[in-house]
Amino acid sequence: MMTERLVVIGGDAAGMSAASQARRMRKADDLEIIVFEQSGYVSYSACGEPYFVGGWVEDFSDLQVRTPEQFQAKGIDARIHHQVTSIDLDGRRVAVRNPNGEETVAYDQLLYATGATAIRPPIQGMDLDGVYMLRTLDDAARLRSLVTSGVERAVVVGGGYIGLEIAEAFEHLGIHTTVVTMMPTVLERTLDPDMAELVSDHMRSMGIHVETGFKVECIAGAGGIVAGVGCDDRSFPADLVVLALGSRPQIELAKEAGIPLGPTGAVAVDDHQRTEIEGVWSAGDCAEALHRISGEPVNLHLGTVANKAGRVAGINLGGGDATFPGVLGTAITKVGDLEISSTGLTELQALEIGIEAVAASINSTTSAHYWPGSSPMTVKAIAERGTARLLGAQIVGGPGAGKRIDIFATAMWSELPADELAWTDLSYSPPFSGVWDPVHIAARKAGEKALN
Amino acid sequence: MMTERLVVIGGDAAGMSAASQARRMRKADDLEIIVFEQSGYVSYSACGEPYFVGGWVEDFSDLQVRTPEQFQAKGIDARIHHQVTSIDLDGRRVAVRNPNGEETVAYDQLLYATGATAIRPPIQGMDLDGVYMLRTLDDAARLRSLVTSGVERAVVVGGGYIGLEIAEAFEHLGIHTTVVTMMPTVLERTLDPDMAELVSDHMRSMGIHVETGFKVECIAGAGGIVAGVGCDDRSFPADLVVLALGSRPQIELAKEAGIPLGPTGAVAVDDHQRTEIEGVWSAGDCAEALHRISGEPVNLHLGTVANKAGRVAGINLGGGDATFPGVLGTAITKVGDLEISSTGLTELQALEIGIEAVAASINSTTSAHYWPGSSPMTVKAIAERGTARLLGAQIVGGPGAGKRIDIFATAMWSELPADELAWTDLSYSPPFSGVWDPVHIAARKAGEKALN
Repeated sequence: MMTERLVVIGGDAAGMSAASQARRMRKADDLEIIVFEQSGYVSYSACGEPYFVGGWVEDFSDLQVRTPEQFQAKGIDARIHHQVTSIDLDGRRVAVRNPNGEETVAYDQLLYATGATAIRPPIQGMDLDGVYMLRTLDDAARLRSLVTSGVERAVVVGGGYIGLEIAEAFEHLGIHTTVVTMMPTVLERTLDPDMAELVSDHMRSMGIHVETGFKVECIAGAGGIVAGVGCDDRSFPADLVVLALGSRPQIELAKEAGIPLGPTGAVAVDDHQRTEIEGVWSAGDCAEALHRISGEPVNLHLGTVANKAGRVAGINLGGGDATFPGVLGTAITKVGDLEISSTGLTELQALEIGIEAVAASINSTTSAHYWPGSSPMTVKAIAERGTARLLGAQIVGGPGAGKRIDIFATAMWSELPADELAWTDLSYSPPFSGVWDPVHIAARKAGEKALN
Repeated sequence: MMTERLVVIGGDAAGMSAASQARRMRKADDLEIIVFEQSGYVSYSACGEPYFVGGWVEDFSDLQVRTPEQFQAKGIDARIHHQVTSIDLDGRRVAVRNPNGEETVAYDQLLYATGATAIRPPIQGMDLDGVYMLRTLDDAARLRSLVTSGVERAVVVGGGYIGLEIAEAFEHLGIHTTVVTMMPTVLERTLDPDMAELVSDHMRSMGIHVETGFKVECIAGAGGIVAGVGCDDRSFPADLVVLALGSRPQIELAKEAGIPLGPTGAVAVDDHQRTEIEGVWSAGDCAEALHRISGEPVNLHLGTVANKAGRVAGINLGGGDATFPGVLGTAITKVGDLEISSTGLTELQALEIGIEAVAASINSTTSAHYWPGSSPMTVKAIAERGTARLLGAQIVGGPGAGKRIDIFATAMWSELPADELAWTDLSYSPPFSGVWDPVHIAARKAGEKALN
């Protein structure tokens, strides 16, 4: 028996999920698995980083799901501080810079799972001391040591999930915090403006300054050290600036090698995570995924998607037959006690791509209104006019509100229309909801709007 | 235009939902609506009663969703302390005992929504002072005044949802509490034994004594006052005994009048809430509903079902066309910090009715394992061998665990098989779940068992 070799570029969620799954299915003398990871960590939780910075998660090692040694023990040769510098598709080999020099490693199967990297905007003052980004575990460790040594004022540039989570962390540490975003609202990729307003109102009530519609073109400094964001009359003083402007897929290696990219600029894959090159696979933040509502490829940077796509690639590399079923883009976060979640398209996104969308927003409570722990909860459901097909949903509310987005996600997954979701048999007891769950009410109203 | 008259017997969830819905759709000069309610309250929250007894809900009026006056103002003639004593189907009229005497009231349409009543077992000592049941608001008020005036030891007979909720309330008040049930486990109608053990273990850790497999045949007393449960060597001293042995549909009036009952002993209805008698409808705890998994009629006493069935009846009475879509029996409760929920059939119930069921139970956590508020969570998913059709699910775990049952309920509603639920796009962030939600993991394992 010939031993095949699988080389995985990138040792985070997608790469290690795939490696683990392939290893479970094929023995070491059948499939050798080598993972090259340029950082010092494999399989880490990027999503946990803001919570480490904020001090809720105290143990840095908690952010590492598994160590290279643990993978080695399972028969996966996970090599950290190994950076793949080029891919030779014809020769079926990769060039690798390792701590001792350079090497060339041949492969039979290649999984391209390089992930995403933080967007580094062309802003004057980017190189000042005190300007940071948060993407890698090293970033998190650095930020953590900074915030525990006397930061007084921080500005977070970017109003996406990560931006808000970092702002929450800073506020929790007693740092005077400002979030600035050039967008008209926070979370504009996942929430419609009416829902986003609830989030910024809550942030302000927590003492976080939120500045929307502010484009940062300059970071001010003095003596090489950051002094604030904005260099004109409108500026925000800061001794720490974190840029959270989103991330982009790491496709340079793929592009240079000639692995085809898709319309989003990420690696194009089929529903088995195969690229267009025989023997080359891709999964995770660097690859596209099909959106189940729009039917279009998207490039979402979500741990859930990376884990699933990695698993699919791993099953197929392991000799099985798995199909990646697509994504809805379901996501959740919190700022203080406020839970925020969304799935599918926003109303604006649906309209933009030409779907006739209607939406209903309802105000309800997380529990029976008379339950002592009950708090407000707003649910927005978006449906297609004429069919009541669910296109998306958004939830903003107190403890217990956010995870209800999974009800919408499951309904959308199953193509259950809004007017039918309105009748489903959901659980009720006063500490948990009203007798009609807020999800029911929003679905019913969206269904009525869609069908009338 | 002739004004039709709708008479509703029973002014709780089903009756008032129907009345409200019909009123929204038809004006008062088109449809007169009279509701006869034998108690002093309409539209009250029976599910909130244990929480009023326990003192979490302080205001008695919170248990009344709406008052008779509020219904009057909406054009619904809701008459409390009016007991219907017989139904004359041929004459289309009901006999009513009101506070001033007797009357006969004609109807064009009749909605039979009498609800359920607590089962009163034939136990010696039932009439002793200090033996109570909890069903009506008056029961709740009586129990509340009792527990706040020096009860030291209480025994709750019955290990169902209400029994556990009352026990939680007593424990919360510092009362020495014992739950006895003749069943081998608590919650045996909604949880399989492995899951039920987690609940009784937790109750014991809270200081609640749980005695399973104990059939109460005698309540002991002295001088007409209760002294304990059990009159032999095995007995439990108590100065308060609450019987929570479940409820049965109030079908006496229907039976006497000749309204046909179904196989469960409750009123038989079609999917429009019509009984077999022209012009006579029924909804709520007194009526049957179709179980979506077994395909059989069931008689569940759940506020959610009563509200939905009432709404369906109301839409149809209002001139619309609504179909009751069936039930899964989804339910949730809590004991202390432990959340408990279930939907569909238990593994045992599925096997009993001849379905080849397989089950997978998994232990996970409510949040990422490293999140400070994370607590254990066990999920059991039950699927049909060969098809992976989801038959039921059960969840027992810390805060945030219980409401996830709605994901299963929505999947089951849509006939999404376990192996597909395993790939759905559910929300993830460390404060809310692991990257694979416990629901995913349980669904995947159940799917694998079912298909292999």
